[in-house]
Amino acid sequence: MKRIKTAIVGYGGMGQWHGEKLLTLDDKIEAAGTYDILETRQDAAKKAGFTPYPSFEAVLADPELELVTIATPNDLHKPLAIELMAAGKNVISEKPVTLCLADLDEMIGAAEKYGKLFTVHQNRRWDEDFLVCKKIIDDDMLGNAFRIESRVQGSRGIPGDWRNKKEFGGGMVLDWGVHLLDQMVMLKPDKAITSVYAELTYITNEGVDDGCFITLTFEDGFKALVEVGTSNFIRLPRWYVTGENGSAIVENWNLDGKITMVSDWEKRDAVPVATAAGLTKTMAPRTAETIKEYPLPKVESDVRDFYRNVYDVIRNGAQPLITHRQVRRVMKIMEAAFKSSETNSVVEEII
Amino acid sequence: MKRIKTAIVGYGGMGQWHGEKLLTLDDKIEAAGTYDILETRQDAAKKAGFTPYPSFEAVLADPELELVTIATPNDLHKPLAIELMAAGKNVISEKPVTLCLADLDEMIGAAEKYGKLFTVHQNRRWDEDFLVCKKIIDDDMLGNAFRIESRVQGSRGIPGDWRNKKEFGGGMVLDWGVHLLDQMVMLKPDKAITSVYAELTYITNEGVDDGCFITLTFEDGFKALVEVGTSNFIRLPRWYVTGENGSAIVENWNLDGKITMVSDWEKRDAVPVATAAGLTKTMAPRTAETIKEYPLPKVESDVRDFYRNVYDVIRNGAQPLITHRQVRRVMKIMEAAFKSSETNSVVEEII
Repeated sequence: MKRIKTAIVGYGGMGQWHGEKLLTLDDKIEAAGTYDILETRQDAAKKAGFTPYPSFEAVLADPELELVTIATPNDLHKPLAIELMAAGKNVISEKPVTLCLADLDEMIGAAEKYGKLFTVHQNRRWDEDFLVCKKIIDDDMLGNAFRIESRVQGSRGIPGDWRNKKEFGGGMVLDWGVHLLDQMVMLKPDKAITSVYAELTYITNEGVDDGCFITLTFEDGFKALVEVGTSNFIRLPRWYVTGENGSAIVENWNLDGKITMVSDWEKRDAVPVATAAGLTKTMAPRTAETIKEYPLPKVESDVRDFYRNVYDVIRNGAQPLITHRQVRRVMKIMEAAFKSSETNSVVEEII
Repeated sequence: MKRIKTAIVGYGGMGQWHGEKLLTLDDKIEAAGTYDILETRQDAAKKAGFTPYPSFEAVLADPELELVTIATPNDLHKPLAIELMAAGKNVISEKPVTLCLADLDEMIGAAEKYGKLFTVHQNRRWDEDFLVCKKIIDDDMLGNAFRIESRVQGSRGIPGDWRNKKEFGGGMVLDWGVHLLDQMVMLKPDKAITSVYAELTYITNEGVDDGCFITLTFEDGFKALVEVGTSNFIRLPRWYVTGENGSAIVENWNLDGKITMVSDWEKRDAVPVATAAGLTKTMAPRTAETIKEYPLPKVESDVRDFYRNVYDVIRNGAQPLITHRQVRRVMKIMEAAFKSSETNSVVEEII
C-alpha cells in the first residue's frame, strides 16, 4: 500500500524526535519535509535528510502531503491544526493538544467538518515504567491496588524558551502533567474520575507553574497522585503503588525496582495484638519471614506503534489509539487542576 | 529540692515506657506507683519495681502524690485527667490528649479551675529525624525551603487492641498523625496554618482510619505533607525537604540521608535554554559539576527533657514546653483533617 507522505511543522526538540522516528518507518511513512520559522532549524532538517518546505503555505499547498505532525509551541497547535485539516491534511498534534477545552473542541469540530484524522502524540503511554505499573494493577499483583503515585522530578527549573511563558502555553502541568495524567486516564480507562485536587508550585517562575501535585479520585475509590517538580535536587521514586497485599516501587526510567508482598497474613495480625505493644510496633519493619520480594514484571513496547496506528487509521480505517474522548478527559483534568489550585478547593466533577 | 512523687495510670506499652524513663530521673522524680485495670499489668509493674496502687481511687487519695501520667486508651484521658486535677494532682496525658477540641477545652478549663499543670506527652518533638529537618529549615540550609514531606509507613494494619475502635479514640490520625502534626506545628511555631486538605484511608479497617495524607498550608505559603500508612510493604523516605537551592532526605529513624545543593546556578539556567532541548532535558539528572552533597547536620536530644521541664514547671514556675495553645492547634488541625476527608473539601481556617 502507498506510503503516507508526512511533514513535520516545528523542528525543535520534539520535531527532531519525530523526524528520527519517521525515518525508521519508511515502509509506511514517506518522511517528506519539515518546516520551521527559524532558518537554523531549516538547516538542521536538511542535515538530517529532510527537504524543508520554504513556508507554511507550501506545506498547505502540497497536494501529495497527507499527514502533518505539529511540534510547535503549544499556543500554535490549534490554528495550525485547523488550517491543515481545512487544507485536507491529517494532523498529529504534539502534547498538550492545546491550552483549554474550548480550543480543543474547535479542533475536534474541524476534524469532523473536514473528515480528517486528528490525534495527539501521547508518546509516554509507551513508557515501560508506566506499562510495568499498569500490568501490576491490571494483573492484580498486589491484591487490590488502592493508590498509585507518579513523580517526575528535575532540578533545572522550567526551560527558558517558550515553556516559561503563559501566552505560549507554558508551565509544567501542560508540559509534563499532561503526560502523567494521560497515563492515569489509560491506567483505568473505564473508570470515571470523580474529583481532582491540585497544588501548583511557583518556585522558579511566577507566570506559569513550575510543578504540581494533583490527586485524582476514581469512581471506585482508587487514588492517583501525579507530581511534577523542577526544584528537586534529590529524586523520589518514579512510581509507588500500594495494594492490600503488597507494594511496588519503580525507582526510575531504567526500571530499577521491586514488588514486596506479604507472605504470611496471620503474623501480620498477630504482632500488633500483643498487649505490651508500644506505638513503634505499628511501624516496625516486617521480618523476612512474613514478606517476599519479586522483580518487576517484564513489558515490551515500541513507541513507533503510534505512527503504525496512524498509518492503519488512514489506510485501513482502524480506530486511533489516542482518541478525542481520551484527549478531552485529560484536558478536563488539567482544567480542573488549574481551578483547584487557583481556588484552593477540591473540584468534584465526573471526568 | 523535694522530688516529685509521680504515678502512672495505664500500664500498657506507653505506660511501661514512662516507667522506664521515670526510673532514670530519680534526682527529680519519685516513681511511686502505677495503676492499671488489668491484674497482669499490675503484676508487670511490680516486677519493674513499682508499687501498684490498688485502685484509681487510691491514686486520687494519696496526699503525697503530685503528678500523674495518664497512658490509658484515648477516650479515658479526659475523665481521668479532670478527676485527677480535681483531686489536686498535676497531669500529663499521653497523646492524643483527647478526641475533640470541645473535650480538650474542658480539660484546659479544669486545669485553670484547679490551678494544676496539665500537659501532653508529645515525645516525638525530641525525635532526631525531626530535629534534623527543623535545623535544616531554621538554618536556611536549602535556601528558602518551600515544602516538607513527613511519612511514617508500616505494613501491619492497625494494632488489634483498642486502637482499631472509634469509641476508644482509635485510628491512625489520632495515633500517629498527632505526632507528625505536632512536629509540623513546632517546625514553624510562629506561622499560622491557613488551610488543611486531608485524605484518610480505610484499607484494613472501616471503623477508623488506618492512614492519612494531610497537607497543611502555612501563612507564608510553606506546605507540609503528613502521611501515615499501615499498608505500605515498601517504605518511602521518612522526610523529604525541598528548598530553592537544594533538597534534603532523611531516609529513616537511623538518620541515613543527605543534603544535595546546587553549586553552579548558571549551568542550571543554561541547559534548558538550548534550543534543541527536548522534554527530557527538563528532567535530566544534574551532572556532578553543578551539585554538591553534604551529610545531614548533627543534632542532640534527650526525651527526658520532657520530664525535666515538668519538674521545673511544678517546682520552679517554668513555662511548660508543651502548651495548651500548641495542643489546641494540633487538635484543630486533626478536626480540620477529619472534616476535609469527610466532606472531600479543603478546610480554610486560621489555625
